[in-house]
Order: sequence, then C-alpha cells, then structure tokens
Amino acid sequence: MKNTAVVAALLACVASAPLAAKEGMFTPGQLPEIADDLRAMGLEVAPEKLADLTGFPMGAIVQLQGCSASFVSPEGLVVTNHHCARGSVQYNSTAENNYLEDGFLAQVKADELPAAPGSRVYVTTEITDVTARVRDGIDTLSPTERYETVDQRVKDITAECEQDVGFRCLVASFYGGKEYTLIKRLEVKDVRLVYAPADAVGKYGGDIDNWMWPRHTGDFAFYRAYVAPDGSSAEYAEENVPYRPEHHLKVSAAGLDDGDFVMAAGYPGSTQRYTRLGEVENTFGWTYPTFVTLLNDWIDAIEEAAPLGSDARVKYESRLAGLNNYEKNLRGQIDGARRVGLVDRRREREAALNAWIAADAARAPYGEAIAALDTLSEESATAARTNFWYGNVTRPQLLSAAQRLYRLAKEREKPDAQRESGYQERDMAFFRQGLQALDRRYDAAVDKAEWLLFLGGYLEQPAAERVAVLDEALGIAGASDIAQVEDVIDGYYAATTLDETDTRLELMDASVAELEASDDPFIQLAVALYDYERKLESESEEREGRALALRPAYMDAITQWQRSQGAATYPDANSTLRVTYGKVLGGSPRDGMAYLPFTTLEGILEKDTGEEPFNAPEGQLASIRAGDYGPYALDSIGSVPVNFLSDLDSTGGNSGSATLNARAELVGLLFDGTFESVNSDWDFDPRTTRTIHVDTRYMLWVMDKVDGAQGLIEEMDIVR
Amino acid sequence: MKNTAVVAALLACVASAPLAAKEGMFTPGQLPEIADDLRAMGLEVAPEKLADLTGFPMGAIVQLQGCSASFVSPEGLVVTNHHCARGSVQYNSTAENNYLEDGFLAQVKADELPAAPGSRVYVTTEITDVTARVRDGIDTLSPTERYETVDQRVKDITAECEQDVGFRCLVASFYGGKEYTLIKRLEVKDVRLVYAPADAVGKYGGDIDNWMWPRHTGDFAFYRAYVAPDGSSAEYAEENVPYRPEHHLKVSAAGLDDGDFVMAAGYPGSTQRYTRLGEVENTFGWTYPTFVTLLNDWIDAIEEAAPLGSDARVKYESRLAGLNNYEKNLRGQIDGARRVGLVDRRREREAALNAWIAADAARAPYGEAIAALDTLSEESATAARTNFWYGNVTRPQLLSAAQRLYRLAKEREKPDAQRESGYQERDMAFFRQGLQALDRRYDAAVDKAEWLLFLGGYLEQPAAERVAVLDEALGIAGASDIAQVEDVIDGYYAATTLDETDTRLELMDASVAELEASDDPFIQLAVALYDYERKLESESEEREGRALALRPAYMDAITQWQRSQGAATYPDANSTLRVTYGKVLGGSPRDGMAYLPFTTLEGILEKDTGEEPFNAPEGQLASIRAGDYGPYALDSIGSVPVNFLSDLDSTGGNSGSATLNARAELVGLLFDGTFESVNSDWDFDPRTTRTIHVDTRYMLWVMDKVDGAQGLIEEMDIVR
Repeated sequence: MKNTAVVAALLACVASAPLAAKEGMFTPGQLPEIADDLRAMGLEVAPEKLADLTGFPMGAIVQLQGCSASFVSPEGLVVTNHHCARGSVQYNSTAENNYLEDGFLAQVKADELPAAPGSRVYVTTEITDVTARVRDGIDTLSPTERYETVDQRVKDITAECEQDVGFRCLVASFYGGKEYTLIKRLEVKDVRLVYAPADAVGKYGGDIDNWMWPRHTGDFAFYRAYVAPDGSSAEYAEENVPYRPEHHLKVSAAGLDDGDFVMAAGYPGSTQRYTRLGEVENTFGWTYPTFVTLLNDWIDAIEEAAPLGSDARVKYESRLAGLNNYEKNLRGQIDGARRVGLVDRRREREAALNAWIAADAARAPYGEAIAALDTLSEESATAARTNFWYGNVTRPQLLSAAQRLYRLAKEREKPDAQRESGYQERDMAFFRQGLQALDRRYDAAVDKAEWLLFLGGYLEQPAAERVAVLDEALGIAGASDIAQVEDVIDGYYAATTLDETDTRLELMDASVAELEASDDPFIQLAVALYDYERKLESESEEREGRALALRPAYMDAITQWQRSQGAATYPDANSTLRVTYGKVLGGSPRDGMAYLPFTTLEGILEKDTGEEPFNAPEGQLASIRAGDYGPYALDSIGSVPVNFLSDLDSTGGNSGSATLNARAELVGLLFDGTFESVNSDWDFDPRTTRTIHVDTRYMLWVMDKVDGAQGLIEEMDIVR
Repeated sequence: MKNTAVVAALLACVASAPLAAKEGMFTPGQLPEIADDLRAMGLEVAPEKLADLTGFPMGAIVQLQGCSASFVSPEGLVVTNHHCARGSVQYNSTAENNYLEDGFLAQVKADELPAAPGSRVYVTTEITDVTARVRDGIDTLSPTERYETVDQRVKDITAECEQDVGFRCLVASFYGGKEYTLIKRLEVKDVRLVYAPADAVGKYGGDIDNWMWPRHTGDFAFYRAYVAPDGSSAEYAEENVPYRPEHHLKVSAAGLDDGDFVMAAGYPGSTQRYTRLGEVENTFGWTYPTFVTLLNDWIDAIEEAAPLGSDARVKYESRLAGLNNYEKNLRGQIDGARRVGLVDRRREREAALNAWIAADAARAPYGEAIAALDTLSEESATAARTNFWYGNVTRPQLLSAAQRLYRLAKEREKPDAQRESGYQERDMAFFRQGLQALDRRYDAAVDKAEWLLFLGGYLEQPAAERVAVLDEALGIAGASDIAQVEDVIDGYYAATTLDETDTRLELMDASVAELEASDDPFIQLAVALYDYERKLESESEEREGRALALRPAYMDAITQWQRSQGAATYPDANSTLRVTYGKVLGGSPRDGMAYLPFTTLEGILEKDTGEEPFNAPEGQLASIRAGDYGPYALDSIGSVPVNFLSDLDSTGGNSGSATLNARAELVGLLFDGTFESVNSDWDFDPRTTRTIHVDTRYMLWVMDKVDGAQGLIEEMDIVR
C-alpha cells in the first residue's frame, strides 16, 4: 500500500499552503520596494541584495538567445533547459553519434563540443538609466519625429556602449517608453556543450506533455562559457579558457517542500498585461480565432506537401512543431480567456481606473491620455486586420529573404549609425546566419504550397482590402480564384536562384541598382513591394510615436492607482532580467480536480509506454523500480521529486530560469507553464496560473544514477 | 478570492480520509459476517438488518432492466438514474413536446406518462436457497449431463415459482455454481414516468464526460410503480393505483461530507474477479485489442453508410453511441490493466494461492481442480478466438432475427418446460418486443455495410479457421476477397422480406417445416447454420458442465485462503442485490494529480459553453450565478455539491443504485465509475477505483430551484 500512503502524504501537503498565486515580474531594482512582502513570504537573503544585478545572486544569472540560464560553478558552467540547448545537441549529432537519442556528456573539458553556430551567453556587467537622454524634449515633436528621435538616440547609445569590444548592449524600454535602461553585457561567443541527457529524459513527454501537468520532463542541460586567455570575449578557439564568473549559484540537493518560498530570475520575453480593452477584444475576438483557423490549414498544407518520411518533412519538422505548439497555445489562450472572463475582467479594471481618475479633477490629464490611447489602439487593431492577409502573403521564405536583401542594400546607402535596427554592421553576423540557415529548412514544393495557401486567403478578401501593388506585381489583379494564380507562382520557383545559399550570401554585397536590375522574380517582387512596405512601416512608426507620448501617462495612472491600493506596478516583460516570487504550490485547474505540487519518479513508470515520447531509458526505469533514490528523496512524497509547480509569474523567455529557494540556492529550473496559464500573458489569474520547474534533486539523481555525471556534480557546490 | 478559499477547503478535505478503496460486492446475507468492519467504518444501523432483503432498508431497493432503483415514498415513487429512464422520456417525446430537451414533470399523478414498452420494476419478495435441489447428485454425471441437469432444474424451479401470477422469478448462481438462490420478485408492469430533468441537466457532459471526473451530471429521474386496485401486478390500466411498498427510503438534504461512510445497494451485472490467468491474458492480450480495432472499423463503416443528417443515422445513433462507449471502455480497460499490472497481479495472486494449497497436503484436491480449470480456461479461450470471426459474421440484424425465429420454431416442438431459456412462453413478450424494435434501428444499407465488414475480417482468416457450412451456404467457398462476396450479399438484401415488421411477427408462429421451405435468403442461411451453431452450443455446454464441477472447488480454495488472511470472499456480480460500502473519497488518478471528492455548482458555470453537452438551462445558470443555494449547500465546499466520488465497488447494472449514509438515508445515486476504474471488473485496484454519484442535495436543488418539483419534494421524507 506504499503508493496509497504517498498519495495521502501528497494530498496532505496540498492543503497546507495558501492558494492565491503571486502576480508580478519585477525588475530587480523594484525588489527593495516590496522587501516587506518578500520577507513575509520567506525570503532569507536581504531583498536589497537582489537589486544588485552584478552582485550575488543576480550576477550569476545570464541570458541565452530566447532563454535564461545561470552559472553554477566558478569555471563558467552554465545550467539551462534541455530545450534551450537541444539545438546544440542536434548540431553535433550524427548517425554514428546520435546525442539526441543517447545524450551527451563530456567527461573532461577537452571533450566539450562547440554549441550550435550563433550560440551566445550574455553576462550583464553594467546597468544605466538613460531615460533622460532618450526622452529629452520629445514631447513637443510630431509623432513621427518623436519616434525617429527616440529610435536614433537608442541606436546612438547602443553604439557608444559597444565601442567596448566584446560587449553587446541594449536599450530596453519599460512601461511603454516611460523609462529606458542601457544594459551592457559581455557577449560570450565560445559556448560549449558539456552535458545533455537523452531526449528520452530531457524531452520526456514531448509535445503531448507540452504545457501539461502532471509532468516528468528532465529539462536540463549544461553549457560552459569560454573566453580568450585574457578574459575577453572571443570566437571559438582552442586556447580559450573557461570564463570565471564573479558569482555562481550553489545547487540544493535537499530542502524544498510544498509551500516553500521560491523565486525565479530570468528573462521573460513579452507580456500584454496593460493592453487596452479594444486590443484585447480584437485579439481574442478576431486575431487569435482567425489565426487558429489559418494555422490548421497551414499545418495541413505542409503535411500534404511534405509527406511523412520525405526529405522535405525532415526540413519542416521544426516548423511543424512550432506551428502545432503555437496552435495549441492559441487555443489554450482562447479557452483560458473565456474561462477567466478576460474581456470582462479587463473592462472592470478599466472602469475601476476610470473611477479613480474621476475621483480627483487633478487626474483629468490621465483620462485624456487614455482616451487618445484607446483611439490609437482601435487604429492599430484596424491596421492589423487590414494587413493580416498581406502580411501572410509575404511569409514565403524566398520572398522574405529577397526583401531583407533589398532592404539591406537600401540601408547600406546610409551611414551605419542611421540604419534601421537589424541592418547595422553589428547585426551582420546574425543576418548572414539567417540566410545560411534557410538552406536547412527550405523546400520549394512546401514553400510554394504555403504561398498558395496564403494567397488563397488573400484572394478571398473584399476588393477594398486588396493591395494594388501586390496584385500588379504578381499580375493577379483580376484574379479571385487561386487556380488563376498557380501558374504565376510556379514561374517564381522555376526562375529563382535564391534557393542557392551562395547566391543569397553574395547578394548581401549587391547594390540597390544591381538588385533592381536582377531578373530573379522574388527580388523583382521585393523591389516592387518596397515602397508599400515603407508606407506601412511609417504609419506604424507614426502610431508608435503617438504611443510614446500617451503610454507613459497611462502607466503613471495605473501605477498611482495601484499604489493607492497598496500594490506595486511592474512593467510588462521585455526580455530584461526579472524576478518573480511565490511558493511551491499545487492548484485546481478546474472544479473537482487538483494538481499536486510534485511529481515523482514512480510517475515515470506509470506514464512509460516504451514508445516516444514516453520511453525513459531502461537503466532509469530499473533504478526507479529498485527504489534507488540515493540522497535525493523528499520524505513528504516518499520519492525523488521530478517536477514541481509554483505560483510564479512567468512567460516565454523564462525557460531555463534559475529557481531559487529562500537562501538563493538553485532548487530547480523553470521550463513551462500549465495549459491553464497560457493566457496569463494577458491577465494573471491567481487561481489557475502555475509555473512548472524541474527539481534539482531529479537533475542530480539523473546525473548520479543514470548518466554517470559525477564529475559535474563535484564541480558544483552542492548544499543540503 | 472566494473560489480560492473553496479550493483550499476542498483540498483540506481530501487530506482527511484514508485512501484505500473498499473492495467487495457483498450479498446482503454476508453482511452480518463483516459486521465489525461495517461498524468500524461508520455504519449506524445494525448490519444484521441489512441482511433482511424484504425488511428496511433493503426492501426499498428495486431492480429495473439493467439498472437499480429505490422507493422513496409510500406511494410507489421510484428514483433511478436519468440514463436508466431516458428511454421512457424519449418514447413520450414528440416534436411538439420534446421532453428530452425540456425535461418532463407530472405536477399531478394524472399527468404521469406510461414508461417505454417493456419497462418493469422488480420488487423482491422472497429469497430461497436452492443449492441442494440444483446440485443434488450432479458430481457423478458426465459434463454434458451435468450441464443439462442443472439447466433443467433451474427452469423447473423458476416455473414453479412463477405459478404465482404477477411474479418473475430467477435462480441465480453464485461462486461459479457453488450456490444457487431462487429470487421471487413482484413484476410491476405498469411503470409511469413522473419526472426527468432536461437532457441539459440529466445528461450534462454527455459522451464527453462519460466515465470522467470531474463530473456535473444530474443523473436522476423518477418513475412510479402502479398495480391493480387489488395490489397485484397488472399491465397499464387507468384504474391501476400506485403501489404501496412496505419500505421506502428517507432522502437526506444534508450531512454528507468528505470521508463520511456511504454504502450502495443495487444490482451489479457481472465481474471477472476470479477468472484464471490464462483467460485474463487472452482477454487483454488478444480479445480486447482485436475488438478495439474491429470496433473502430465498425464505427467508421456505420458512419460512412449512414452519413450525418440522414434518416439512417437517426436509427443508428443509439448503436453508434453504444459502440463508441464500448470502444472507450475497452481502451480504458487495456490502459488500466497495463497501469495496475493486471496480469502480474493475477499471476502473483495465483502463485500465493498455490503456495497456500501446497502448504497442506489436505488441500491437494483444490490443486487438482484448479489445474483442470486452467486447462478448461485455455480451451474456452481457444474456442473464443476460433469462433471470433464466425460470431461477428452472424451479427447482422436480419440474420440474427432469422436465427431466433428458426430456433423458436425448433424449441416449440418441445414441451415449454424443456425449451431453451429465452424461448419459453414466459419469454415471448420480450421476444416479440425485440422483433418489433428492430424496425426503429435497422437500415438495409447500414446492415449490409456491417455485414461486409465482418465478412471481410472472416475472409482474411487462414483456411483452417473458415467454417465450411458458412462458406457453402453463402457460396463463398473459394472467395478470399470481399469484392467477390458483395454480389451475394446484395442478393440477400434484395430478396428478403424480414425487414418488414409484420413478416417477422407472423413468423413467430411458423413451423420448422414452413421456415425450412421459406425462400427468404436470411431464413435459408439460418436453417443452414443451425446444426453448426448447436454444435458450438453443445461444446460450450460441455465445457460449462466441467466448470460446474471445478469452479466450486476453486472458489472454496479462494474463500478459505482469504479467510486465513482475515478477508471475506464475495461472489462475482450476477445481477443480484449486492451491498458495497466505503467512504466519500477523492483520489489520485495518476502521479501529480488528484480528484477532489465533490464537484460544485460553480463547476457547471466553468464547463458551460452553451453548446451540447455543456448547455445547462439558462435558469439554472442564473441561479448559480446568483448563489441561490437554498438549504442545499455543503459548508466545507462553500456550494451545493453536484456529484461526489466514493471508493465503493461497482459495475454496470449498479446504475441508479441508492447511495446510503450511515443511517441508511438516501444521499445520492450511483451512476458511473471513473475512467481509471473501468478495469475493476477484472481487478479491483484500491488506488484508482472510484465510483461517481449524483448528490441528493443537487437533485433537490434542481427540483426546487430549476424545475419547480416542490410537489415531489413534499411527497418524499426529507431529512436534514
């Protein structure tokens, strides 16, 4: 009856904690403001220490592309999610050495493998408030001038900062342009893969379990940051040495239980917590449902054009996974919005804010700014709907490449400092990589099928929503049936040479005149659409310029109103470092059901079918059957905890975030949210929002009992 | 934050109870044996009282066809599940009065409607042990003689008992033929529909929620039993009067909470708890997987032959629902068997029993009987596999009707007492109804599509498994491709007149000679297959005759072995009255998840989409939104409980069972089990087996707040 006792213990645990999740992705600088609550929740280190981005523990937190990570040894060992490092595992895999299937472990540093091209570790070294410099005098400018001024100043500040070679700088905007911060980061370019468990551990449950609880995913992997012998950033080279971070995290092998304080530090990508009602309604009433329909057609089109087992399918596996993932996410968002009454809640919040504004005549300017912002939101929504099909029509990869190349030639006619972001010299390495990578994920038949799908949708739109320049350039002005267009499209793929990597790379050096003289149909189309696209861009910039004047006032109003209620306002996520804190906590996804806070090793036995994605390694299953927990068991659940739930506030980009206990020791890695949480980007519902972490005890157990990674365990500071 | 508080309370509740479910479907006569445990679990009425089938409370428990029910007023008011009475709601529904959609409520007795033809309420009046008479001297007979002797004695005893007009008797076999009990039951033939909520309450969640938790189904409805003015059983007649039962249940409007004692009294259909390993392996390794594949093809074939919206589809809705239901059930059983390790558990149990037998030389005869039983099990399994496709080929409705008619003519040549069960005069009313009902669920194109599917499967079998007489009769001896057979089958449907109800009913009076002279192809086929079918039947009877000598010894061994471990052995379910007892109890269907013990009114709001099957009546939704709980709320959950879970041991046939509290007051109606429980028929897993009940507080709340059934509430004895 052991299982029963365990369940009883788990259930008993669930009952011991409060159940309201903690909203808030705070900037470290805000933490002293809410120090009392942090202490009340259980934080043992001084909240003020957390505000120091280059001190302990924040100095140990680093950023990867699209993911978060942290240093866990004095020799530059970095821990992140398996899914954040999987591209590097794949990059190094061959038929003989299939590291995806077998996992990879470098027993000594010399065996560590270069990460996938373009992999970076960003270590923050300096933070500067540049609000005054960015916003000085912009209030009196026209919207377009305002946008351009801010844009140029941000580029200038970035360029100045990057005069320090080996650093990558960024100016981040907070509260809709109310504040600007310059973040200077060491750009570690020599990143090496140290250890990744097999997919059957690191990706256990695969797409089926994605966003799901209960979860049993060993979503962890290790990189190491390398620098030149003098400590400066350098491309991969044999003589490079491990980077020695000023700070690294201790790794906990014990102690975390239900209800315990946890916090996560990472780089959440973006949220829409302050979006106005009109945009929320447009998104959930039109954009998302429309896109779900399109996504399903899109997936079908790819699957038909790239049948299972074909070479093309291999190239599109990743895109298909992404589209399926996005489709599931959007459906979850739509369901979630209905379940929590998102639109009504937003309406109520705006009414409450209006009431607060109305209560004091001095607040009238807020009301005016908000009214203007609402008009702007409506305009933006209308523009998004109008351009929806045009935007899709320009998705095909070769057209998109042609557009980027022609834009590059145009931008190159300006001094570097004035070029559009993405087209400056600092962007060229990634630009080139993008053009190269196309090769591995392009198939003409599939690209054409996608284009025909999008054109089909475009052709069904009323005449007023057709774009004349597109119709003319494609010669489809009178067409309303996709069959009339197919020959034209066939001609594009027959005549182009953009499908050759060398051609694309050579064209990076082509002049505007050369491109305009090109007889490649995709380049001709890119040239034809250029002015129209710039028109859309400048309209968008004009709206953004107006927003730069209005949103700060709106955020001011929100901040003061929330302060009057004793709550701290935090800025929407913007890929900068944030801290979210709360408790280990189960939940009730719906009436009559509960999520328990921990899953156990035995749950793997329960799920395992022997077939991907539920095909744990035989050695792991044997260790579980043998009850070989080592020192990693949690008494209250009678097993080794695998994944756990918390009420932390997270979103995409948070993947790999260090999950810390009250003493700022690493207790887990944040890697997902529950399906009921996917709409938390728009509205944090404390009842249903739960974040999923892999427990460090499971990580250590796998390293110890399954993968023989004792060397790495020894390298880290393990605490009990 | 009300919801959060409620969830916290629910979770707190979950932790308060033990989690091992209670196995056992005990005969009421066994309850005094386990009186100590019943009292320890919380039963307040004397366990001995429960053994009296005609006393209180068991005298209030009645049986319907395939369902259980109970008297809840002195005027013959019967409460059962909505799904047990839905056929009567459908029978009375018209386009103008759509009671399925609107619900039905008779405000006065005169408005009560006749239940669907053939509806019965069976009230047990007498129980007699007839083991000695049935088994006397059979041990020395040959297997076939043994079978025939027992069969004839059972028929004789039944016939004697039914000389008392208005009673329906049955001889039930317990422990595989070790014991026989004669059950005499008043057959109430005038059954009237009193009240059924709308499908949107009574079938809320529909097939999607079937076997699922969390659940929000108002699965209750009321019949009334009517008898002749003199109290005897009578067909529907205006002068009939409500039956006055000796006992009826009080209905609780309060008191039940998590962890409370509950028991259910009802008529579980059949279980396989004592099946030998060989049969378990054959079932889960071959029969169920094979049948799941066939079911999916079968469902596809019907859906293709009867497209959505066609008249044919209407006729096959019920069959499709049944097949889908069965398919889901079998998948659940296969999954569940894997999850709980059914085969290993059975193997271990048999090993433990063997060890107990081996421990004492006096037990050797048990070992011999069991060895012989295992041989028999293997033979039965082989026969089932060999006959699988032949059995399917004889499924088409017209062939089946023809076979029954020819068999009837053959049986009619014998004296009534010696005829096969199902073909005696006492069976003729149901026989006739069966032939009539075919009309409402038959379509030639669909029947043909089904037959072709089954024949296709048959033709794929190796030559040795073909049945020569079938091949010859159909003229398909050389055929191996279904295309070769299609013309033959077309001819059957073109030539038959069995699709006319009158024809079928007239043929009930046809002689063997008349049928043998028939030129109807289905009747010709039935005649041709007759001897082969009798051969299969007599082989099966011979095996059953052997089992009648062996199973009692096996059950004796099990009983003594379990008694030596302090456990009471109960007989497999056989549609006789059983009592199961335990607690209100949530559970953990899998690692990391918990089922809370109660669902709430608010869960209906959460699930409701406005679309069937999640389309609660607007008035109900409004009452929930208004928090209009009346006196029916449960404080610990902060709402009216809708459905609840218990650890009771139940199966098909238990539907509608009275769920009673410690004082034997009605607190709910058992109506389903969770998906994780569907394989409990084979192996009761205390960790995952949970039974689902509708709470009487929800029933009363709907009657009071939604349907205006105050009259019925007044008629019942409501206790708090």
